[in-house]
Amino acid sequence: MEGPAALIGIDWGTTSFRAWRIDESGNVLEARAVAAGILKVPGGAFEAALEREIGDWLGARPSAVIASGMITSRQGWLEVPYCPCPAGRAEIAAGLVRHRTGKGCEIHFVPGLSLLGEDGVPDVMRGEETQILGELGEEREPRLMVLPGTHSKWALTKDNRIVWFATFMTGEVYGLLKEHSILGRLMHDDTPDETAFRRGLAYARRRSGGLLGKLFSARTLGLFEQLPGEAIGSYLSGLLIGAEIAAAVQCIPAPDAAAEITVIGESAFAERYRIALDAAGLPARRAADQASARGHMVIARAAGLLP
Amino acid sequence: MEGPAALIGIDWGTTSFRAWRIDESGNVLEARAVAAGILKVPGGAFEAALEREIGDWLGARPSAVIASGMITSRQGWLEVPYCPCPAGRAEIAAGLVRHRTGKGCEIHFVPGLSLLGEDGVPDVMRGEETQILGELGEEREPRLMVLPGTHSKWALTKDNRIVWFATFMTGEVYGLLKEHSILGRLMHDDTPDETAFRRGLAYARRRSGGLLGKLFSARTLGLFEQLPGEAIGSYLSGLLIGAEIAAAVQCIPAPDAAAEITVIGESAFAERYRIALDAAGLPARRAADQASARGHMVIARAAGLLP
Repeated sequence: MEGPAALIGIDWGTTSFRAWRIDESGNVLEARAVAAGILKVPGGAFEAALEREIGDWLGARPSAVIASGMITSRQGWLEVPYCPCPAGRAEIAAGLVRHRTGKGCEIHFVPGLSLLGEDGVPDVMRGEETQILGELGEEREPRLMVLPGTHSKWALTKDNRIVWFATFMTGEVYGLLKEHSILGRLMHDDTPDETAFRRGLAYARRRSGGLLGKLFSARTLGLFEQLPGEAIGSYLSGLLIGAEIAAAVQCIPAPDAAAEITVIGESAFAERYRIALDAAGLPARRAADQASARGHMVIARAAGLLP
Repeated sequence: MEGPAALIGIDWGTTSFRAWRIDESGNVLEARAVAAGILKVPGGAFEAALEREIGDWLGARPSAVIASGMITSRQGWLEVPYCPCPAGRAEIAAGLVRHRTGKGCEIHFVPGLSLLGEDGVPDVMRGEETQILGELGEEREPRLMVLPGTHSKWALTKDNRIVWFATFMTGEVYGLLKEHSILGRLMHDDTPDETAFRRGLAYARRRSGGLLGKLFSARTLGLFEQLPGEAIGSYLSGLLIGAEIAAAVQCIPAPDAAAEITVIGESAFAERYRIALDAAGLPARRAADQASARGHMVIARAAGLLP
């Protein structure tokens, strides 16, 4: 650990804890990531968990500490009210909630966003708003962003604000099918198989059958040995990501406004989405890594937390 | 137990075991049902399980014993090759596989059906073919049947043969979401709620969003207290059954051929499907109970197993 941190950014989600030490120019000095999501913190002992992961960083007295993600939800440390869309850095900074820990450290919790759909059904995000702000520059034209994950988000920005978004339970449904369903029984050692993945994408694009019908093909192709057990996971991933893309494209309020889609995410998973978007005829590029850390910096500056 | 049984019919599925003692006129003398599906039979000890459930019936020497369902699959007692569609009573009877138990009881295992879709993807059923035969009379015109379940089946019959079918993983996906997903965490004591069920059906009929997107509404409506925890299960059931119906309708090769849909199944679940079909503008009626037992009788007669 060298040099003083201006800011510590924390993205504390359901399944993972990630943190960055950032200098006053926005450079990441150090990053940590552990599988210590909020569901793994027993009895809501969040302060103890935080001390364990980055107590040394906090002890060095950074100018500000910002936390985003499910840590701000009802199941988290402190429930922060959602900020309604459209929202940009100013609205999100205005919604920060300050909390002083037992050790006297001040943490600024970032509000998630809510959107009331035209059909009266709400949608929500927590954590992705920070990643999106980290990716947004000063452009005023519309941009379409995809954030793959347990609950994938598609978001449209305009004039530097998030104007629309939608959630797809793709990652969670994949995990359920793999871990607990009859499809999982035919899967062996899941090795990424791009041919099988693309086959799943293509089957997802078929007009008829719906996802509930198409899913069964992962079983029958395995039963009839048209797909080896090692490839079923990749096929299923293609089916689900393909279904998400086909559905999302129908929802976007200004589909032609965004010339290119930006995929935000650091994993091989984000690369799968880029391939899938490309296969669907949608030009896509991957954002630079550490969008969360950049977003924490944007919010800290907008809130006047840095000297 | 009174009167001699001509036939014992067994429907042994993944999660349940059901059996009927049937007289030579086809009347059910006695029925048994236990949650002793093939996955609950340790080490493939199917004969011991059978003795435990209906050993007394078998000891009384019926004329014939017929078994259908997943007991004829690779995970079952004896794998019976699929009978390809189109198939009626003659083809299915010709595919019976005879097995003599250690105690000298002869069991005739019913083949399931396979169908190779136009897209080259196979589909399969085991057990439902028997229920469909039990429901079919001598009519030659097309009939459309729906068999709700873990893996729902839609089947089209013509000239007394099953000419097409499709599988939807609706029941299994509902169970996964309820037991293992983030949606389950907001659900309390699931009490059937027809209003919430119909709300889910209506949301499923929306054109955009796809199932992966629509599922998330079960969470956000709960979060924003637009749906009480007790009603989320019914809402989710409506979403999934509505999605199945919308998808199935697109697949049926002769959608206008069937003036009325027949729902085969004995549970409150079948009634949910009837309501859902009705809400989608599809006239439906429920079949009489014990379609499996009637189907076993049809097959036994076609195979010449009864005196």
